[in-house]
Formats: sequence, C-alpha cells, structure tokens
Amino acid sequence: MKMKPVLSIVSDMDSDSYNPDDMIAALATPWGQSALAVIRITGEGSIEAAAGLVDKPEKLTKAPGYSLITVSLLHPVSGEGLDKAMAAVFRKPRSYTGQDSLELYLHGSLPGIRWVMDGLRSLGFRDASPGEFTLRAFLNRKIDLTRAEAVHEIVTSKSLKGQTLALHRLAGGIEERVREAQTSLAGVVAAAELQLDYPEEEIEVQGLREYLETVELQKKRLEALSATFKVGKIFQEGVRAAIAGRTNAGKSALFNLLLREDRSIVSDFHGTTRDYIESWITVEGIPISIFDTAGLREAKHPVEAEGIKRSEKVIGAAHIVLYVVDGTAGLSPEDEQLLSEYAGRENCIRIWNKIDLLPPPAPDGFIPLSTVTGEGFQELEQAIVHASLGKGGGTQELVIDSARQKDLLDKAAAALAQVINGIENEMPVDAVAVDLKEAMDGLGEITGEITSADILNIMFSKFCVGK
Amino acid sequence: MKMKPVLSIVSDMDSDSYNPDDMIAALATPWGQSALAVIRITGEGSIEAAAGLVDKPEKLTKAPGYSLITVSLLHPVSGEGLDKAMAAVFRKPRSYTGQDSLELYLHGSLPGIRWVMDGLRSLGFRDASPGEFTLRAFLNRKIDLTRAEAVHEIVTSKSLKGQTLALHRLAGGIEERVREAQTSLAGVVAAAELQLDYPEEEIEVQGLREYLETVELQKKRLEALSATFKVGKIFQEGVRAAIAGRTNAGKSALFNLLLREDRSIVSDFHGTTRDYIESWITVEGIPISIFDTAGLREAKHPVEAEGIKRSEKVIGAAHIVLYVVDGTAGLSPEDEQLLSEYAGRENCIRIWNKIDLLPPPAPDGFIPLSTVTGEGFQELEQAIVHASLGKGGGTQELVIDSARQKDLLDKAAAALAQVINGIENEMPVDAVAVDLKEAMDGLGEITGEITSADILNIMFSKFCVGK
Repeated sequence: MKMKPVLSIVSDMDSDSYNPDDMIAALATPWGQSALAVIRITGEGSIEAAAGLVDKPEKLTKAPGYSLITVSLLHPVSGEGLDKAMAAVFRKPRSYTGQDSLELYLHGSLPGIRWVMDGLRSLGFRDASPGEFTLRAFLNRKIDLTRAEAVHEIVTSKSLKGQTLALHRLAGGIEERVREAQTSLAGVVAAAELQLDYPEEEIEVQGLREYLETVELQKKRLEALSATFKVGKIFQEGVRAAIAGRTNAGKSALFNLLLREDRSIVSDFHGTTRDYIESWITVEGIPISIFDTAGLREAKHPVEAEGIKRSEKVIGAAHIVLYVVDGTAGLSPEDEQLLSEYAGRENCIRIWNKIDLLPPPAPDGFIPLSTVTGEGFQELEQAIVHASLGKGGGTQELVIDSARQKDLLDKAAAALAQVINGIENEMPVDAVAVDLKEAMDGLGEITGEITSADILNIMFSKFCVGK
Repeated sequence: MKMKPVLSIVSDMDSDSYNPDDMIAALATPWGQSALAVIRITGEGSIEAAAGLVDKPEKLTKAPGYSLITVSLLHPVSGEGLDKAMAAVFRKPRSYTGQDSLELYLHGSLPGIRWVMDGLRSLGFRDASPGEFTLRAFLNRKIDLTRAEAVHEIVTSKSLKGQTLALHRLAGGIEERVREAQTSLAGVVAAAELQLDYPEEEIEVQGLREYLETVELQKKRLEALSATFKVGKIFQEGVRAAIAGRTNAGKSALFNLLLREDRSIVSDFHGTTRDYIESWITVEGIPISIFDTAGLREAKHPVEAEGIKRSEKVIGAAHIVLYVVDGTAGLSPEDEQLLSEYAGRENCIRIWNKIDLLPPPAPDGFIPLSTVTGEGFQELEQAIVHASLGKGGGTQELVIDSARQKDLLDKAAAALAQVINGIENEMPVDAVAVDLKEAMDGLGEITGEITSADILNIMFSKFCVGK
C-alpha cells in the first residue's frame, strides 16, 4: 500500500510560513565545552551554502554523498580562520531528511559553536525547530510517523529495555503491523464499495459475512497492540517506588541496597550533575525512581508533622510502595494501621527486614530480606518487576509507547467492533461502510498517511533540537 | 631538524602501566540527552575489536579510511539490538591519533551511551584519560607539544579572538618559530662543538664572535614571543571588570548597557544554564566578566556593612574598575575619597554619566557617557580594550597562552644572554657550550622533542575527556 503524497500535508501547514525545503541548522549535541560538538544542517542547496564557511568551498560542493572530509572553517563575513573540522556530506535522497545534508564535527568550544551558528545564519540558514530534521524525514517519506515517534523515544528512553523496544519501533514494527491490518481489511472495503457502487445488483450485506473472521482477527490484533501501551510506557518512562515504614525498620538501608545492587545507576557515569537522577535505578530494564521517605521524614524536616505530610504525599504519588518492617521488632499497631491503609493499593510490597538477626518467620505475604547480607534481594526484585508490569508483562517485542498511537488503535478497533455488529445484524451497507472508513482512517493516521498540521506540530515539538 | 624517537619518552612513562597502543574509548560530547552523541575510540586493533558491537562486523573491518557507514549496534554480551548509528572509520596513520580510530554517532540517549561504553569495555577498551587522544597524536608525531596545547586552548577559549589565536598555534606557528631559532642556532652549536672536539687546534673563542648577531637576534625574538603571553592569557581567559560608584550613579544602567550592546553574550544561546556565564561579554574579542557591585550592595544584602565588604572584595579582585559618577550630582567627597583609593590602580576607568541630562562638562580623565542614549559608549569600549591589553596589544597574530611555553622561552632567552656574555668576555668554550645546550634544551622542550612523563601527565590532564 503506497503512502499518499505529502503535498496535502504540507499545504495543511500554514504554507506562507513553512517551507519544507529551506535551509536549517542546529547544534545536535548538548551545549557545553567538550572534545566535540556536532552541527547538523539540511535543506535545498544547503551544502553549496555551507561551503561559504570553508576555505576551499569545492571540497564540499564536489564531495559525493557519504563522504568524510577535513575542512578549515572561516567566518563568512570577516573571513577569519576559526577551526579545523570534519564534515560528513550526504546527498539527497540518501540522507536522514532525504535532502542534501551536512554534519560538521567541531572542537567543542562555546565561542566556536556560536560562531559557526552565526556564520550559517549569515549564509541563509534558519535555526531548526525541535524535531524538524525528523519532520523532514517524514515529509520526504523516509519514515512514517510511527518511526518518527520511535526516534524521539530512543533519545528519551530511560533504560536499555526502553531503548531496545523503541528500536523495534524504529525498525518499522508498528508500521508493518498497521500495514498488515490495512491490507487485510482492503478486501472487505472493496466488497462494501462494490455494493455501494452497484446497488442495483442487490448484493445483500450478507455478502460481507465472509469477511467477518478477518475483521474480528484484525480487531483483536489492534486491541492487543493497544494493550501494550501500559508496558511500553513503563519501560519508557519508568515507575515511582516509595520506601515506607516505621523509624529503624531499615528504610535507608533498603534504599542503599537498591542503589548498590543496581550496576547501571545513571549517576555513576562520569560528568552527570543532575541530582534528580541520583535515585533512578533499573530493575530488569524497568527504570525505577526510588524515594526514601526516611530521608524526608527523619533528616530533612525537624518538624515531624511536616515530614509526615511530605512522606504521605510521596507515597500517595508512588506506583509502588515498599513497606519495610523490622522483623526482630515484629508488626506493631502502627504497622498494622499503615498497612491496612495501603492494603487497598494494588502494588504494596511488604518486606520482613533484618532476617540476618534471626527474627520470627515472615508472616504471609511478606518477603524476608536482609539489607545487610542481601539475602532475599532477588525475590524483592521479582516482586518489583511484577508490581510494575503485571502478569506476563514485558515479554512482547512489539510494544507501543505513544498515547497518540494508542488512541488511534482504540478508535480503529472500536470502529471494527461497529463493523462486526453491522455485518452480524445485517445493517445497511452504507452504515457499515462509514464504520469501515473510520477504521481505515484511524490506521492511516497512525502511520501518517492521513494527518494534519496540528498533529505534526504537537508531535515534533516534543523532540530535541537537531533531531 | 627531525624529532627524536618517541620511544625515549614512552620509556620515561611508567612503562608497566602505560601502553601507548592499547584500545581506549571516550564520550567526546557532553553527557546529556540530545539528538546526537559521539563516542570516539582509538588504538591498535580498535576497529576490529569495535566490530564486535555491530551486526555486520565486516562493514567495519573492511571499510577503508575516511569512510562513513551506517551500522546496527548490538550489545556484545546479550546480542540485543541497541541503536542504528553512523560510524566514521580512520586507518593509521591517517587519523587524529595516528592509530586506527573510529567515531560512532549515536542517538543521544543516556542509557544508549552507557550501553555502548559498557559494550566497548567488554571488548577490551579502557576509558580514555583526559587528553589521551591528543597525547597519542603527540606520541605518534602527528603534532608537537605546542599544537597539542593549542587543541586544548581552542576547546576552552572564551572568545572568538582567543580561538582564532589558538588556531594559529594549532597551525604550527609556534613550532615554526621555535624550529627557526633551532636551525639558526645550529651553526653556533656546531662551531662550539668543533672547538671542544679539537682543542689542539686552539681555535679561540674569538671564532664564535661571528655568531654574536645571530644569537642576539634569536634572543630578542624569543623574548618577544614570551612577552605575548600576557595578551594571549587575556584573550584566552579574559579579564574581570567591576562597576563601582555611589548609589544612583547609574551602575546597574551601565551593567545593562554593556550586556545589551554586546551581541554575543554566551547566555543568549539556547540551552545554557550556567549562571556565572550570564555576565560575560566580549569587547573586541576580549572576554570580560562584568560584576555589578550595585547588585551585591544594594539589592542582595540588606545589611549595608556586609554589602560594602563584598563590593570591596569584588573590586579588589578585578583587573579593571569602571567608576561611575552621576555628572548631574558632580563629584562628591565620597567619590573623591574612593577615586583617590583607586588612583593607584593602573586600570581605573572614570565615567561621567547621565550626559543626556546636560550636566557640567566632564572633568579631565573622565569619559562622558549616557547609559540612556548610549552616547560615549565607543570611547568606553576603547578604554576597556586599552586597560585590558596595554599599548599596542592584540595586534599580533602569533601569541602564546601557555605558562609552560613562556617559562621555557624565558629559560632559553636567559641562556642565550649567558652565551652572548660568554662570547663577549671570551669565556672558555666549554662554559659557553653549556649555556648553548641549555638554550637548545629549552627550545626542544617547547615542542616536546625533549620532555618527561611528568610534564606530559600534567599537561594532558587538563584536557577534556575524548580529546
């Protein structure tokens, strides 16, 4: 099935202001002093224009696609030397955007980056909007919308599992599934159209019965894909887990154990300075941000009432509560009361701590744990995974992570339910045809065959600049 | 003149622990989520080893130098798909380090960057030390030490002028000047050696007199290059300017005027979050950090005494004081007192503000200015440039910015002064020869022909990782 021409989409977008071919430039790496900075440009005539920045313009203008050359950068107005850089040249259509493109690998000095960006502006380049390179890839039919979303999902993924799942989407898994559904439903659409075009033939809606099985199968498959959204979201965005319990139950020790056992704490990596990352861990690919309410309650807030209020807020907003009981002290009335409060919560994990001190056996529903020896840690991890994903979650390879895609899948599945109902109840063919069209439109919107400027603007504005 | 073999240098370095050919890897872009991240590797066999990360290893192992290919990255242990990336392949000796090298352009996701680094470690790569890529370029004789220092100076430059000057150094300007001196002094070294080798010939020291002019010329040239250090440092590191004056003299208005007139404030650039950059401006290429003592004194510190103490500290640490007087109020006893305090300072610029309100004419030594209309701003800028650089500063193309180079230039020039003295006073040839050797050694150390592991370690540890 071929995609519709993109011209209709472009004309949707305010055509006075948006030119899909004009020259854009962006810093594609983070703003900061470093060994390397990458500036990316694309657009009609962009290589020829950017050649105005280098001492021997023909090195760029004559370079074939996929070539790598060294250039000396000069300021286009003052002509002063600025940097020696590498340039990767891409010729249309063999580029990310489908247009002539260039990547410049500069020394990562702040004045140098600004100078090159200034130079490009003076040569007619415009600063790219977030996601604009990927938008152009979509407009030039290099990728469909599901793959465009996957690009964003890869960049923003918080765990390797999230990135691996996004990579399946980038490889076209969702597009393929949608195209399958479209191809499979094409037969029933054709049959319905035939009946509408030749009503005199008086082919009864009965004639659509033979497609019933196909429609039902596709409806189920769309529903199944939609249902992966919860899992996809968890792998992509992660869950919040709060550690609760009485003073001295071992909350901080559990917090430290979780951080220590996780070998991929983001903050371990050289150079990060963002405090909020400090408490992110990854358990079987699920990014989990751990809140230690002990810290809130016992250390930072001398006024106990205020501390308790903050703890309750954190626990209230958490997806998972890790409730720690000191096994040697046993269940106190305070524990019983708090646990009865949390009992209504789906995802309360009860932990019987300090088993290295040989307390009485753990009561039913408690996980025996020693934060000192680490005994019981694997069971705790399994419980966290289970509480995060539910039964059987996380085994699918194809998982969606886009609320937009989920809504459209649901819309298409609901329309197919109407189609099934119409066929079974022998409703008029024109009514069934309206529902069929709605299902097909929903599918078309997922891949972007049918779309509007609004949706594109909303979708791409979430991206990084330079992507 | 040929460089000495690097083997002597390498054997200096703790040879048990440093292998100049082993495989190293580094994130060359800042750590942060972005469109692109670049991971750079080098070392003997590094391309073959890194091929363990991609789905079709032969794409990397068979790629010629300076080629750009698309690869699918897999984790070497789990074999899971991770990312689609671009790879730039460089074959020895045509690479930055002179060794087989690879640059990987990934999606800039944090877990993805970590995964690739983990994967490279599992394949035998070691995390690169700061500056280690440039160290290898030096060890493999791709660049001399002055160019290596220029690489660091480009990355850390705070203004375009600083970067342009560093680029001249990277292009080999200093190396060339040093080699000139070496070549030029080679004649007198040979003559001295001849006399030492054949003392029976009883050639008098008189015979060195013919070289006197040459030695004097070279001494002067080395001194001139050394003298550019002050200017180089100013363009590279910038100067601090403090705005002082009485309440209501217009200090904050001047601060705002300076920031507004400067079109290249670093903080204008999208994405910067570093507060301390906010007050950096550039005046004719000189990076200047402006402190508004009004802000310290009048707004943030209600306790005036504390505010005054802070202001005084800032003014004391400043290279330049911009003293603002409200012309309509005239010189008060307080102004007179403060100005007499600063009068001893070389770089106190006096400003007669509010000339738009037609005050009496500015007293001698004051610059008339209106922060409202901007009148007088160009004169102020010139005064700032003059105060920063001194007379005639900033016109040289070849300027040094390395304290190491300055010390060695001074050492060589001082040794040449001894040589001149020895020749003029007909001292024994062996004494003159010792001084000559010291001068030649100093020159050799500048370019790194003669060096020690300590110096290399100190020098390269200042670099960015990945450089």
